[in-house]
Amino acid sequence: MNHVLLIDCLDQKGLISKISTTLANCDLNIVEMKEHVDHHSNTFYMRCEFTGNGDMKDLKDQLSLQLPSTANIVINPKKKKDVIIFATKEHHCLSDILIRHYFSELNLEIKCVIANHRDLRDLVMKFGIDFVHIPHENKTKEEFEHEIYEVTKKHSPDYLILAKFMRILSPEFVAKYPNKIINIHHSFLPAFIGANPYRQAFERGIKIIGATSHFVTDDLDEGPIISQKTIQVDHSFSADDMKKAGRDTEKLALAEALVHALDDRIFVMGNKTVILN
Amino acid sequence: MNHVLLIDCLDQKGLISKISTTLANCDLNIVEMKEHVDHHSNTFYMRCEFTGNGDMKDLKDQLSLQLPSTANIVINPKKKKDVIIFATKEHHCLSDILIRHYFSELNLEIKCVIANHRDLRDLVMKFGIDFVHIPHENKTKEEFEHEIYEVTKKHSPDYLILAKFMRILSPEFVAKYPNKIINIHHSFLPAFIGANPYRQAFERGIKIIGATSHFVTDDLDEGPIISQKTIQVDHSFSADDMKKAGRDTEKLALAEALVHALDDRIFVMGNKTVILN
Amino acid sequence: MNHVLLIDCLDQKGLISKISTTLANCDLNIVEMKEHVDHHSNTFYMRCEFTGNGDMKDLKDQLSLQLPSTANIVINPKKKKDVIIFATKEHHCLSDILIRHYFSELNLEIKCVIANHRDLRDLVMKFGIDFVHIPHENKTKEEFEHEIYEVTKKHSPDYLILAKFMRILSPEFVAKYPNKIINIHHSFLPAFIGANPYRQAFERGIKIIGATSHFVTDDLDEGPIISQKTIQVDHSFSADDMKKAGRDTEKLALAEALVHALDDRIFVMGNKTVILN
Amino acid sequence: MNHVLLIDCLDQKGLISKISTTLANCDLNIVEMKEHVDHHSNTFYMRCEFTGNGDMKDLKDQLSLQLPSTANIVINPKKKKDVIIFATKEHHCLSDILIRHYFSELNLEIKCVIANHRDLRDLVMKFGIDFVHIPHENKTKEEFEHEIYEVTKKHSPDYLILAKFMRILSPEFVAKYPNKIINIHHSFLPAFIGANPYRQAFERGIKIIGATSHFVTDDLDEGPIISQKTIQVDHSFSADDMKKAGRDTEKLALAEALVHALDDRIFVMGNKTVILN
Repeated sequence: MNHVLLIDCLDQKGLISKISTTLANCDLNIVEMKEHVDHHSNTFYMRCEFTGNGDMKDLKDQLSLQLPSTANIVINPKKKKDVIIFATKEHHCLSDILIRHYFSELNLEIKCVIANHRDLRDLVMKFGIDFVHIPHENKTKEEFEHEIYEVTKKHSPDYLILAKFMRILSPEFVAKYPNKIINIHHSFLPAFIGANPYRQAFERGIKIIGATSHFVTDDLDEGPIISQKTIQVDHSFSADDMKKAGRDTEKLALAEALVHALDDRIFVMGNKTVILN
Repeated sequence: MNHVLLIDCLDQKGLISKISTTLANCDLNIVEMKEHVDHHSNTFYMRCEFTGNGDMKDLKDQLSLQLPSTANIVINPKKKKDVIIFATKEHHCLSDILIRHYFSELNLEIKCVIANHRDLRDLVMKFGIDFVHIPHENKTKEEFEHEIYEVTKKHSPDYLILAKFMRILSPEFVAKYPNKIINIHHSFLPAFIGANPYRQAFERGIKIIGATSHFVTDDLDEGPIISQKTIQVDHSFSADDMKKAGRDTEKLALAEALVHALDDRIFVMGNKTVILN
Repeated sequence: MNHVLLIDCLDQKGLISKISTTLANCDLNIVEMKEHVDHHSNTFYMRCEFTGNGDMKDLKDQLSLQLPSTANIVINPKKKKDVIIFATKEHHCLSDILIRHYFSELNLEIKCVIANHRDLRDLVMKFGIDFVHIPHENKTKEEFEHEIYEVTKKHSPDYLILAKFMRILSPEFVAKYPNKIINIHHSFLPAFIGANPYRQAFERGIKIIGATSHFVTDDLDEGPIISQKTIQVDHSFSADDMKKAGRDTEKLALAEALVHALDDRIFVMGNKTVILN
Repeated sequence: MNHVLLIDCLDQKGLISKISTTLANCDLNIVEMKEHVDHHSNTFYMRCEFTGNGDMKDLKDQLSLQLPSTANIVINPKKKKDVIIFATKEHHCLSDILIRHYFSELNLEIKCVIANHRDLRDLVMKFGIDFVHIPHENKTKEEFEHEIYEVTKKHSPDYLILAKFMRILSPEFVAKYPNKIINIHHSFLPAFIGANPYRQAFERGIKIIGATSHFVTDDLDEGPIISQKTIQVDHSFSADDMKKAGRDTEKLALAEALVHALDDRIFVMGNKTVILN
């Protein structure tokens, strides 16, 4: 089975030599190795995919001896991630993931879809996925999120995917899943934060529209960005035309972010991402 | 000689019929006709390029009789525009225009280059263009702009092109050239307004960078947008790498805006542009 | 109800005046009018969308009187087109159309899906669309296409969409549906015609891959091109990686072609298309 | 001083460990390390940039002991490359390089410009670069190339850059500079090989145009591709419009190829390139 080794630590001379030699000594074969040094923080990031039948606990111990004591070392078997998808009424990002999943194009298992409206129920059920309807009306945010958490916690998901989920999650909920909630925002952030970005874009008279996939943090639309895409528009686009044209961009930006996340390629560095692909 | 007819007026049924019939009656031949109706303001915009040897004063009178009394009707002979370029220290947008001009690829005459530093003097003089050095140090903005205006006014330019000009022009100066000052800003507006957009972009950890060409108004970086372009970046780009990578994007965005402006294709509609190309 | 008027004829002075005046006289209101003159063949092309309750037969007669006798004049009510989709084993273009159709994003009715393999049956049936399995094994091409034609002819489709249909249609079959069969080819034509374009692309070591949607004619992959899209690849892509990466490009190129076709925006001019959008 | 280490050899387990350990033992500090394994040929490629004051001869000897005996090991000091630019009449690629060079944006020294026409003489001389006019008229190809070689050989250039040089070089000449001649072809190869690609593109009615930068080999336009770029066009583009629109694409494709080449990032693998950036 392939494994993925993720390391981040203070940079120092000889790290690649130490790590690659440790792997070689364990008779593990490197399939792909990518590294990045952030010169601002003097931090070394590495993602290494390898094959071989070693004892991963033993490998981690040996690496710990070689690396700075504050190093983060994670070794994951390369397997499907468990995800829960959140949606509201718009289908396009959800549809895109459902279809890619149905044809095994994404490295994930969908445990269920949670939605605060019923609109997408029929679509989800076509694909044999559990649809959990949790309305938000007549509830405090706390109550609403408590109901959500009752569902999510029993699945221990690797990621929560907000596929056009139109409710803002509280800091308390977000804190339960740090760097595990991936959102798609329908603008090229940091422009047009918040509600109705296509309306804002239309009113500003811009010539490009875009989409941004990012990890969710306490600050609305301010989390670490994973992927962004833009397309050209012109004066003939109404706000609604922009919204329609933007759908494909949103789907592609989210799909790209998912591929990186599901493949263990993303490090979060402060409010940024390092993506070793 | 080709002429360009520009019309904007309240939309009503039969406008295209009236205009095209008037042109046909004057024995003028339409080479290209583009129109746009803005449904928010119910305004009709048309750009019509035609050939023929008529009396343009007469054509305008006849059109006036057919169109709503508040219609704006402009008829320009299709010829080179007189421009003045403003620069500071960065060369790339200026170089790009100088080269395109030298090989007659842009529909313009450069009357002179005005710069607040001397750095680009040698480059400009290579191409036989007047370089006017107007330092801004030890002057009030009023004094600085007065010196600039002494130069610009004697050329009666069609457009002022701010090719990485790093001084902010006062509302008083801008008011002398409404919708005639074209700037290039090194971000995808409305993101990263103001100083050091690449630094801002780097700190936000974005995955695209861009450039925006726009008309200058009283509000910094808030004028009607003419063209925008973006390119992908990633975590390996320092702020300086972004700045370097952004240069080509800036050149192309400005060059595209100039082609539209020099070809009389741009209508300003509130804070937006309608570009009939 | 909106109608779309399509005209192509020899170019001459005053055409726009004549057409727009005829429409105005019939009390019809132009919503959008686009024209193009091909200077090689001196041909005028116009697409005009209008509203109003006139007699379309009468309008056509009146236009005929005004236009050259060889003019092609077509007036279509603006309504959904009937299409039949052809598929084989690959799902992505079919999935994309099924989902867009399910959420009413495309201006079409799917009469059925015809496939020479069973692989996509379950997908199609999820969406309540008829799936017609017509195997090609152990049949002459003539027999195979006869079976297909038995199905297609009873639906009188506006368009046949080859959504990764891996059989080559005979000139005889193609002749039954001139300019009505839309294919998606997985390369940027004219490069990599025929089988296995990603394999060909891989072996050539190219840095971009692409997709082309075109009308089908007698010559394989040589028909009039409607839309093309490309994306960047690099040396790290295997032929299979290119194939995977190309899927989104194929979906988007085909979807764009469909929007133009379903909206009556495409003229075929020899082996080229004029798209008035 | 920074150095660049380039290695290609048969892949085997532990290579990264051996190489990085050898560098660490020599007290050299890795600034950037990129590797690629081509699974078809089972070949390992590495580019490693490092700092430190070691004996490069000694490093190479030590690496040779560690690596397969057939390994290619090249160590270059990181410094400007000497280039000679070839041109004919079109200026845009040449202008672009001259300007970038004048402002020290490219890692090269231009030894001279060789052209078979005089058209670009004034431009080149503005920048203080030697312009060598070698007409091709009334000469055999052998005579013409002999004159060229008399000039090139005395400069021992690292690269010859064909910046829209419209003469086909003979296999004999090409053999003198293997993988050192970089061309820009004005189409997305392998489409539209040979003369007049924009005319060919126009006649085929394509919706994208492009440019390809590649190493020159014996086969016209068939050498290893370094970079490719495309832009969208439509039916309104004449062959001449395509040519004009393609210029920026050609400039950018060539500039990108040069950056890779000048930075020692390109390996030639059969008829492909591996670019470690």
